[in-house]
Amino acid sequence: MTRIFDDPAEFADDQLAGFLDLYADRVRGVHGGVVAHRGDGAPQVAVVIGGGSGHYPAFCGTVGPGMAHGAVVGNIFTSPSAAQAYSVAKAADQGRGVVFSFGNYAGDTINFGIAADRLRAEGIDTRIVVVTDDVASAEEESRRRGIAGDFTVFKAMGAAAARGADLDEVERLGRAANAATRSLGVAFTGCTMPGEDEPLFSVPEGHLGLGLGIHGEPGIRDVPMLPARELAELLVDDVLKHAPAGAPGRVGAILNGLGTTKYEELFLLWRHVAPRLRDAGYEIVDPEVGELVTSLDMGGCSLTLMWLDDELEPLWRADAYTPAYRKTAAPLAALREPTADELAEADAVVTAPAASDAARGLAGTVRAALAAVESTIRSHEHELGRIDAVAGDGDHGRGMLKGITAATARVGELGDDVGGGWVLQQAGQAWAERAGGTSGVLWGAALEALGRHLGDTAATYPAATVTAGAREFATTIQQLGGAQAGDKTLLDALLPFVEELERRVGGGEGLAAAWTAAAATATTAAGATADLRPRIGRARPLAEKSVGTPDAGATSLGLIVTAVADVLTSQKEQT
Amino acid sequence: MTRIFDDPAEFADDQLAGFLDLYADRVRGVHGGVVAHRGDGAPQVAVVIGGGSGHYPAFCGTVGPGMAHGAVVGNIFTSPSAAQAYSVAKAADQGRGVVFSFGNYAGDTINFGIAADRLRAEGIDTRIVVVTDDVASAEEESRRRGIAGDFTVFKAMGAAAARGADLDEVERLGRAANAATRSLGVAFTGCTMPGEDEPLFSVPEGHLGLGLGIHGEPGIRDVPMLPARELAELLVDDVLKHAPAGAPGRVGAILNGLGTTKYEELFLLWRHVAPRLRDAGYEIVDPEVGELVTSLDMGGCSLTLMWLDDELEPLWRADAYTPAYRKTAAPLAALREPTADELAEADAVVTAPAASDAARGLAGTVRAALAAVESTIRSHEHELGRIDAVAGDGDHGRGMLKGITAATARVGELGDDVGGGWVLQQAGQAWAERAGGTSGVLWGAALEALGRHLGDTAATYPAATVTAGAREFATTIQQLGGAQAGDKTLLDALLPFVEELERRVGGGEGLAAAWTAAAATATTAAGATADLRPRIGRARPLAEKSVGTPDAGATSLGLIVTAVADVLTSQKEQT
Repeated sequence: MTRIFDDPAEFADDQLAGFLDLYADRVRGVHGGVVAHRGDGAPQVAVVIGGGSGHYPAFCGTVGPGMAHGAVVGNIFTSPSAAQAYSVAKAADQGRGVVFSFGNYAGDTINFGIAADRLRAEGIDTRIVVVTDDVASAEEESRRRGIAGDFTVFKAMGAAAARGADLDEVERLGRAANAATRSLGVAFTGCTMPGEDEPLFSVPEGHLGLGLGIHGEPGIRDVPMLPARELAELLVDDVLKHAPAGAPGRVGAILNGLGTTKYEELFLLWRHVAPRLRDAGYEIVDPEVGELVTSLDMGGCSLTLMWLDDELEPLWRADAYTPAYRKTAAPLAALREPTADELAEADAVVTAPAASDAARGLAGTVRAALAAVESTIRSHEHELGRIDAVAGDGDHGRGMLKGITAATARVGELGDDVGGGWVLQQAGQAWAERAGGTSGVLWGAALEALGRHLGDTAATYPAATVTAGAREFATTIQQLGGAQAGDKTLLDALLPFVEELERRVGGGEGLAAAWTAAAATATTAAGATADLRPRIGRARPLAEKSVGTPDAGATSLGLIVTAVADVLTSQKEQT
Repeated sequence: MTRIFDDPAEFADDQLAGFLDLYADRVRGVHGGVVAHRGDGAPQVAVVIGGGSGHYPAFCGTVGPGMAHGAVVGNIFTSPSAAQAYSVAKAADQGRGVVFSFGNYAGDTINFGIAADRLRAEGIDTRIVVVTDDVASAEEESRRRGIAGDFTVFKAMGAAAARGADLDEVERLGRAANAATRSLGVAFTGCTMPGEDEPLFSVPEGHLGLGLGIHGEPGIRDVPMLPARELAELLVDDVLKHAPAGAPGRVGAILNGLGTTKYEELFLLWRHVAPRLRDAGYEIVDPEVGELVTSLDMGGCSLTLMWLDDELEPLWRADAYTPAYRKTAAPLAALREPTADELAEADAVVTAPAASDAARGLAGTVRAALAAVESTIRSHEHELGRIDAVAGDGDHGRGMLKGITAATARVGELGDDVGGGWVLQQAGQAWAERAGGTSGVLWGAALEALGRHLGDTAATYPAATVTAGAREFATTIQQLGGAQAGDKTLLDALLPFVEELERRVGGGEGLAAAWTAAAATATTAAGATADLRPRIGRARPLAEKSVGTPDAGATSLGLIVTAVADVLTSQKEQT
């Protein structure tokens, strides 16, 4: 829905006033529309485009060097009048004649036609190139509507005019561009006129309208919504089916957003469109993915192809500099692909350090411990979720499972000769990347810190070293999370665990026994705490705590150290 | 709502794959994000930006010459991991150090912080510049969130790096840019995660959320929706209230769309924002109106100002060439304002020709006739609407009234010495411009044709001349509309009128009497026709006719010729 306006009836004029203020350094307003400032070169044939408003960047957004010389701006979805077209053309004319170009709609045809007659009567040679790219609108090419193919035709003529072509040539190339251009669009939602509450048409929820127009004309039929891959297939296959006879193997492409469809969605769709075009044998030249011809707040997109022969290709590739569309070869020409050395350096994965025998032995324990942790988290996932749902959003079990699963998967890819310190570092990185949320970051960073502390060069890993590593683990969480004991976070289980571990190991107890006793302490402590659960990316400050008993984060800490205790005990019994 | 995706959980990765395919000539994908190809100049400090996905063009859309050297791409609205940030920075580093920059969110702070530590440990000097522009998010500057001010800070650092500044200098300028930047945003609608049906928050219909965040954080309070002018005042005044101490009198400005807000709406808002800033004494430097930092499909916008001192201004003005943001001074430098001669020629209003006495006399009759037509259309507006609603959309009376009102207003501006032919031509142009729809075009063009036929040089205007003008009027409508007698259009009343007029005038009858009789014929004929009522801009072909009795277009034709008959009769009686 359109939200920003004063008097809806004045929307088109009001938005144009803002546009003219914004781009006063390159265009000026004249009666009926916009005219680009002239360059300092020779006079050019004036390409004057236009139609109703509501299609930005069409039409005034593509006025400037390399594109159109003027744009006639009608009311929303309404043809400008003949007087408007006449006035803009008169101001845009540089003495070499005028080409009017617009999509094939009755009102535009009449009004630009009247204006052309009037200009000719005054001795200004004026031609008309009508755009007819929409393959869904009619079988007969000359009866088709113009949609995003407007852009390819305007661009071809603007580029031809910029390089000095005469009126006959600009007109001829415009007609050639139109003859080489095909589009098909789909709508997900209708569009709504400023000040109106109801859309001009609607698409049933869960469907898409195939073959929509850009003025609120509904599609030719509604089909169930498709996954991106199938939508890409539909668009590509249908446009290719309408390829011009004898079409060359290169295409310029536009994947055009109609209004409320996001760039990210178009990129996602392009991911499927591009390979399908290449699989069909086409070389894609300078594709454009974004909004070029829109329809107010319509949801949807269209695919336009312009088949490029040797004449059209340089026009499509040419520079242009307009308010909404800017293309300059120079900055890209200065770029270079990275050298092999740079790539090697930049992308180098830090390789595992050589590991001592003891570190390789430690790796076995770490792998077993990670497997046991995954097992216990998996079997407690829903319980952790239920606990979390008391004070949080119930996804603690899911997040922990994603983290430990990513960790064990990464560890599974490592060779047999790595040390336990390296295994822990890799597990931590994988956990942090995949688990999401603050707890994912904290668990990941803490595992990495533990791994770095243990290292892979020691001759032995006595209980005191492991205990100091556990303290490092806890300190990392404290420092990154900014919480302390008593803040009702997982620290309320972790810190008693570490303290008990330190006390027992300091008193000479063996690691397995000390760890088991400390794990019991942690499990008990977990019963009376609440988790630290801000969601990353949201604005809730880290200091904000939820309150609830028992706490999910502390509970999972208890489960994890208990599972590790079992591994340590079992390994001790085996040795 | 997000519509295009395959597996919603893979949305961020999938869209990145499409982005990388599209811009393979200028960026490459690395683990965790995107790195720009290097230029052929000296190595630069690497500006590495990032955050969650869903904000395009932030963040990968602003990677390229003059802006960032790399972008870390997290999941939707989720901080990228430390390993991702590390990996992108490692690939972007050119040996002169790295500046990480991102909006102030807990997860980003933690993850980029960990990555910076890791890079420093490897000998890569790494700095962090956090963006805190959102004045609504906290009183204390350092606690504020980063929203569209991300862009000004990234741009300042990218420009500084591009001109060769060292790491200290890039960091210092980034902090200066952040200290000079303030933003305030409003939301009209919430945003929805891919695959979800419900938005993350919602704004009550008819309201706007003031001080929104860009991750689905609702605004700080909902206020009733404002007209554009008041919305502009709110944004400008509140941002200015938070101006940095000792701020200079020049500002860079961004009026940023958040997702589904259209360019036209932003232009309309800019129309009010710009003068209010100027009234406050500010010079606006290179304003940007469009989408720079979005939030999925959120409706809304934000205003960002960067106060420009002599150090920041050239950075803000500098060239950049990225996928989504391109600025090049050269094409504009080549433009020139039109000369006075060109302006005079282009904008010259064709002046009224010298009028004969008879033509001036005719002008009086035409003015009286137009006034009578306006009066009769005004008093029948609703009746014509009701008739039209049977087969059309009920706006015929409204459209006709807009046309004749515009015509009489234009005529009222003309001097007393113009001829009747000129008055009719001006009336026709005004009618066509303001009435809209095909009937507006036809009435306007037909009046113009009549005016041209009559001209302003004749010594007398006998009945035969006026009758031939009426035929010209009808022929114009036939040719432009492509309809014929019997097609159930206004021609079904107009053609009988002209034929009867021709018959009677040909038989020697006086104009007033002949016209009056012909008007009666037209009114009778109008009772059994249907109008030609396609709406311009819609795809309905001109040949498509609605069926209904009586017809609105023919009815209004009958009313109009009857009103004119009364004027002719009254004038005849006066002479």
